[in-house]
Amino acid sequence: MKSGSSFLLAARQCEIAELEQLARTCELVGVIGRLVHALQRERGLASVFLSSQGAIYAAQREQQAAACRVVEQEVRVHFEQLDTDASRVRNGSRLFSRVAVALHGLEGLPVLRERIAAQACEAPEATAAYIKLVAALLAVVFEAADAATDPEVSRALVAMFNFMQGKEFAGQERAFGARAFAAGAIAPEGVQQWRHLIDAQQGCFQAFADFSDPEVLRADQASRDPAVLAELERLRRIGCTSRGPLEQEASHAWYACCTRRIDAMKEVEDLLALNLRRLCETRIAQTRAELRDQRALLEEIASRPVGTAPYGPQLERSILDMVQEQSRRLQAMSDELDAVRSTLNERKVVERAKGLLMAHRAMSEDEAYKALRQMAMNQNRRLVDVAGAVLSLADVLPGGR
Amino acid sequence: MKSGSSFLLAARQCEIAELEQLARTCELVGVIGRLVHALQRERGLASVFLSSQGAIYAAQREQQAAACRVVEQEVRVHFEQLDTDASRVRNGSRLFSRVAVALHGLEGLPVLRERIAAQACEAPEATAAYIKLVAALLAVVFEAADAATDPEVSRALVAMFNFMQGKEFAGQERAFGARAFAAGAIAPEGVQQWRHLIDAQQGCFQAFADFSDPEVLRADQASRDPAVLAELERLRRIGCTSRGPLEQEASHAWYACCTRRIDAMKEVEDLLALNLRRLCETRIAQTRAELRDQRALLEEIASRPVGTAPYGPQLERSILDMVQEQSRRLQAMSDELDAVRSTLNERKVVERAKGLLMAHRAMSEDEAYKALRQMAMNQNRRLVDVAGAVLSLADVLPGGR
Repeated sequence: MKSGSSFLLAARQCEIAELEQLARTCELVGVIGRLVHALQRERGLASVFLSSQGAIYAAQREQQAAACRVVEQEVRVHFEQLDTDASRVRNGSRLFSRVAVALHGLEGLPVLRERIAAQACEAPEATAAYIKLVAALLAVVFEAADAATDPEVSRALVAMFNFMQGKEFAGQERAFGARAFAAGAIAPEGVQQWRHLIDAQQGCFQAFADFSDPEVLRADQASRDPAVLAELERLRRIGCTSRGPLEQEASHAWYACCTRRIDAMKEVEDLLALNLRRLCETRIAQTRAELRDQRALLEEIASRPVGTAPYGPQLERSILDMVQEQSRRLQAMSDELDAVRSTLNERKVVERAKGLLMAHRAMSEDEAYKALRQMAMNQNRRLVDVAGAVLSLADVLPGGR
Repeated sequence: MKSGSSFLLAARQCEIAELEQLARTCELVGVIGRLVHALQRERGLASVFLSSQGAIYAAQREQQAAACRVVEQEVRVHFEQLDTDASRVRNGSRLFSRVAVALHGLEGLPVLRERIAAQACEAPEATAAYIKLVAALLAVVFEAADAATDPEVSRALVAMFNFMQGKEFAGQERAFGARAFAAGAIAPEGVQQWRHLIDAQQGCFQAFADFSDPEVLRADQASRDPAVLAELERLRRIGCTSRGPLEQEASHAWYACCTRRIDAMKEVEDLLALNLRRLCETRIAQTRAELRDQRALLEEIASRPVGTAPYGPQLERSILDMVQEQSRRLQAMSDELDAVRSTLNERKVVERAKGLLMAHRAMSEDEAYKALRQMAMNQNRRLVDVAGAVLSLADVLPGGR
């Protein structure tokens, strides 16, 4: 029969097993980041290729698709590894559901690419398909952040998720602006949508900043070229405020400027991924060292000859102190984790409101999201507040579960 | 390489694995309930034995100790089984820490019993040791409730934990009142402590009622003998309001009345344990059936000859619908789980406040709890509110982490 002390060690071993699992999830997040970046490029090239009736970027688009396939393969290998130790994956059911959606999206890629190559679809349709796929990949990262069991790693994952999501909004803004400049005009509704993309980026980068350490923030600051930002803001101002027709040449300037900004973000993201990996290694090493110390101490206590001090009540005290200290530490970690995770709730509220609209109004996911965004714009409120209001109406809506 | 559909099935398999793990934890909770009940009896007998200088219950106490050892062995077997699949236990590190504390308490039992048999300690000291051990065992149940991944099971575990904790307060009240009547007098401070034990029971049974289904509530109602309750309230009134000396004979009436009440509670607890086991079985069977249906549907879709409707976009739609429905369901479950778990937070707030006082004021756990309770009594506030106030002062207190 096991003693109390051996469960003290088992608790520590569980922590190590969880951290090792978390390290694999973090690896996956890093690889997903690279795939998302590659898909963002492919999306931009495909959009220009289709808009130009195949005149521009034909070869580059093919090359980028090939590059994507290589990273996709890496992502699939990581997915596969997750599945191998399925029953050990914390929150496995939710993570695997997200993976299923992402894989389903990836499985549609070859057909999408064929249609793009044959110019059998329009640029907006192709762009929307890539946006959806990237969203599915980011949802895997979100779930990984939500399932993390270590507050420090969770914090880093939340920062990473928000950075990736912000970068994706920047990519969507690039595509949106490029189309607007290329079309030479923008409707008032389009201006609202543009503003939404800018606000969404700011929200994400603020959350990223809240959860990042000074080193990362310095790297992020250093990556922001003031000249690029000035050009970006100038073109945003022209795009958003111009009453007359837009200069079509500005489209290229816009695209180039956004791309410089996004590529700089990629470097920060790589740093985030590297730090995440190092953090996991450090936490595993720390916990292993703690396990070693604890085991040595317990063995030393157990081997003391009877009559040696501390024995009896004192010995009991020292083991009990150790046990209680560990309980308190785990509780503190759990509280901290709850605090970090609570920042992910805004997104969950929006997801739930979307689900509600889909169920009650027979809307597609896109339609539900657009409806929420429209409500937020009309009422000049934050998306999460509108989503909360929708949820609070859930009980009075007819039907549904 | 795995497809999206296979991850859909993997997600479901994870759910089943989690439910199976949960079923084992629920078994453990049931056995812990039996051990707690046996220890409560042993505590009562030991208290009377010591108070009567060994005149009363000498043989019964020995018999009860032997009965306890049998159940203790069962609990240890269940602990052992937990450890066997350590890395699969969700929240394992926290659960195992609690198990370590509980085992540590159990390891002290033989020495405690020797001292009681030799009348080498006073009744209050022995009672306090049993109270501490029971608290450690209930903490394991609390952790199990907090770690449950299925909202329905979590709900049943929260009800069970609150019932067990309420029953333990009833047991403490029995011992407290028996000593007060036996001593023939009660100090004003003692009256306050008595009232605290009554309020604590009410809080627990209210939480139990909030999370129980009608069947259990009916059984609970049926178990409450109005005659026993009337006698209990009469003796409580006498004990709490009497200014003069208490009738010592009332001690026996009090003990008998409380014991009838507590034994009736045990029957409800057994029903709770049985329902919990059945609920786990039902949920596992349901999820297995869903997995089977889903697998059959996916195989059927995969085997359709090309050209059969639905194929192409329609097929894609039907798999995607399935995937998204699953994601939504899991999110809804997770939201519901958070809501159920949030009711456990009051206890966590008290635990954290205790930890803070222990760290900053160098208090023992008992002292910290008594200090909080005293503050609550003096300010006529709820324990959890006082604990919250203590935590909000954390930043201004010197030292600490």
